[in-house]
Amino acid sequence: MTAVDILGYAAGAVTAFTFLPQVIKTWQSKSAKDISLNMFIIAFVNEIMWLVYGIMLNNWVIISTNAVMLIMSGVMIMLKLKYNHR
Amino acid sequence: MTAVDILGYAAGAVTAFTFLPQVIKTWQSKSAKDISLNMFIIAFVNEIMWLVYGIMLNNWVIISTNAVMLIMSGVMIMLKLKYNHR
Repeated sequence: MTAVDILGYAAGAVTAFTFLPQVIKTWQSKSAKDISLNMFIIAFVNEIMWLVYGIMLNNWVIISTNAVMLIMSGVMIMLKLKYNHR
Repeated sequence: MTAVDILGYAAGAVTAFTFLPQVIKTWQSKSAKDISLNMFIIAFVNEIMWLVYGIMLNNWVIISTNAVMLIMSGVMIMLKLKYNHR
């Protein structure tokens, strides 16, 4: 494995958990007024595209990264709809 | 270009603009209390990692996608710091 490969895997691992601080913050504060619903709907649909892409290429890095992000986007959509008015 | 390639380019183009609805919403509402600063700091650092990866591979899809996201993450960090208390 080259340095470039290691950087790619590390970047991918970080990407998978980008939404986690937002999920934790919204979960704890129960306030989502300032969150863009459209952003997380776009992310959700986009991650389905990436999942299909990963499945077509049988690339497990793409599949696993985007499966994590798909779940987090879905959670953010639910939290936004639940806590929008607080 | 195969159907898989087209899906990959389409997914990448959508990814680049994922943060745009949040930038527009925060810009207009001038309210960022519910936004996670940590999320956009992680995204900012992560996009620098992806940019370096793209440059090392000389892959312009990775470079351009992450350059757009780096700018949007930077704007969101500034908006968060400016409008945190509203």
